[in-house]
Amino acid sequence: MSPSYPAPAGWPAHATIREVGLRDGLQSLARVLPTEHKLQWIQAAYDAGQREIEVGSFVPARLLPQLADTAELLAFAKTLPGLVASVLVPNLKGAQRAMECEAELMLLPLSASHAHSLANLRKTPDDVGADIARIVQARESSGSRTVIEVGISTAFGCTLQGRVEPAEVLRLVRAVLDAGADRVGLADTVGYADPAMVQSLFALVLPVAGDKLNCGHFHDTRGLGLANVFAALQMGVTRFDACLAGIGGCPHAPGASGNVSTEDLAYLFASMGIATGQDIPALLALRERVASWLDGETLHGTLWRAGLPRTLLPAGTVPEASCA
Amino acid sequence: MSPSYPAPAGWPAHATIREVGLRDGLQSLARVLPTEHKLQWIQAAYDAGQREIEVGSFVPARLLPQLADTAELLAFAKTLPGLVASVLVPNLKGAQRAMECEAELMLLPLSASHAHSLANLRKTPDDVGADIARIVQARESSGSRTVIEVGISTAFGCTLQGRVEPAEVLRLVRAVLDAGADRVGLADTVGYADPAMVQSLFALVLPVAGDKLNCGHFHDTRGLGLANVFAALQMGVTRFDACLAGIGGCPHAPGASGNVSTEDLAYLFASMGIATGQDIPALLALRERVASWLDGETLHGTLWRAGLPRTLLPAGTVPEASCA
Repeated sequence: MSPSYPAPAGWPAHATIREVGLRDGLQSLARVLPTEHKLQWIQAAYDAGQREIEVGSFVPARLLPQLADTAELLAFAKTLPGLVASVLVPNLKGAQRAMECEAELMLLPLSASHAHSLANLRKTPDDVGADIARIVQARESSGSRTVIEVGISTAFGCTLQGRVEPAEVLRLVRAVLDAGADRVGLADTVGYADPAMVQSLFALVLPVAGDKLNCGHFHDTRGLGLANVFAALQMGVTRFDACLAGIGGCPHAPGASGNVSTEDLAYLFASMGIATGQDIPALLALRERVASWLDGETLHGTLWRAGLPRTLLPAGTVPEASCA
Repeated sequence: MSPSYPAPAGWPAHATIREVGLRDGLQSLARVLPTEHKLQWIQAAYDAGQREIEVGSFVPARLLPQLADTAELLAFAKTLPGLVASVLVPNLKGAQRAMECEAELMLLPLSASHAHSLANLRKTPDDVGADIARIVQARESSGSRTVIEVGISTAFGCTLQGRVEPAEVLRLVRAVLDAGADRVGLADTVGYADPAMVQSLFALVLPVAGDKLNCGHFHDTRGLGLANVFAALQMGVTRFDACLAGIGGCPHAPGASGNVSTEDLAYLFASMGIATGQDIPALLALRERVASWLDGETLHGTLWRAGLPRTLLPAGTVPEASCA
């Protein structure tokens, strides 16, 4: 697809969208999507050009039965050439499973909100930082090649605590990088970020983290998800998490929008002439299948209603109806 | 409301949201909203701090029966102190009515897409430019003080024609300013713009139009509405059109998102510490009333589901449920 306008000088040529719908998305829904559908989802996402997929989380099945089949999904994902399959792990035990299953990457969440960290894990952010240090040591001693990425959650604010100090986010990023984490990302877990906040926080953290800070995880809870992505992109960030159909909302705010939707994010980049390798019509077709599997759930995203603009349609496609 | 973070140096202190739901929004719906409800909408929008409202359009009632009561709405709007009431006018006849009714501002659309202009008005863009020149002359000879703003529609692309050349947009802006238009705005009528496009087109036109270019009109058809607003804001644009509940979609793409939603846009600015004078809880309350009046229509916008973040809640408000 060629952009309507050439990308301005200074824009990156490529950006990466990591699909987290199978983890962040599905964990937010009460229902359990059958493994068979998840396997079809992973295959179709791969066929649509997705090369980074978070397939699940190594947490006790009694806590998140929706993700109980993570090991099976990971085993399948590893059969797809060039696919970087990641899993979320909350602790050393989960990290050991991720390394045993040879996940390419494990995502370790660390909440910058003291209140959120205590409520979720009954640990302070510094306790979680100490766990991360132990996980890094376990990885070193095991000789595992699983990449360790720390996601700083509630980095832009917290529903329990309210404001989260940027200086605290910076302190925690420094701590986990000192502990040996390979990568770090900033996550707007509850949809409190705005584009100015995004630019000021990345401006604060990037000089310390450099290219080890390489992921923006934004929710569209209040409609600013893609504006926040654009703001981060302007700061040089080129890897973003997204969920197909924008699932991943907060279970306590039924119907509230979730993660930025994969298909809308892929369209943003395609329109700007930034290559992601994703086939948008194929993503929209997969969205329809996922919507049928999740019948009754509130889905999100916008592009699916109107379709691609005429300027981005693959050759031979019939454009949408005229608004003239 | 105080922002979570102070607005970075260089951000404007104030921005203006012009409510166009009563015109761009309602004209896209088949139903006719009773005048009584429109009057309540205008009063409540005014009470919520809105000071620029496009109340309707002076077009033949047989073409847009939804807007047949524009003169009555305008007369009421003029009784509200400090409210700038605008109307859209498609031709000299409509302009004469707007001046007779002493509208503070009349919006004249000029489509930069040749195909769109012919399909909508059976006139070329240059023919429309000549009409605008005649309207300016009529305003001068009548001594009317109605401000003339030209909205360059399909400035970022067209569902019929596809790409619209930036050079053509620049040529038309120059022509209408030479003809004596007081102001000009750029409109993404069909939702083809992306943030890079927005910045490159405003960068092209601003040196020619200066502060006479003072409105961005964005649709959220494909999810990029607020990202486009942010991109324009970075170019120094501080006046934006919006529709409460994001109505204003294309009648040929049922359910497709419409204009950027007023409440989400007001939240974007409030979170960034940019004053708009709008009371967001009051806007959300009005949205509920409008939703009941428009029962059965597809509405849009995102903030209404989750509510304001704890960091922006008025003192004494109970925050939303926790996502922890």
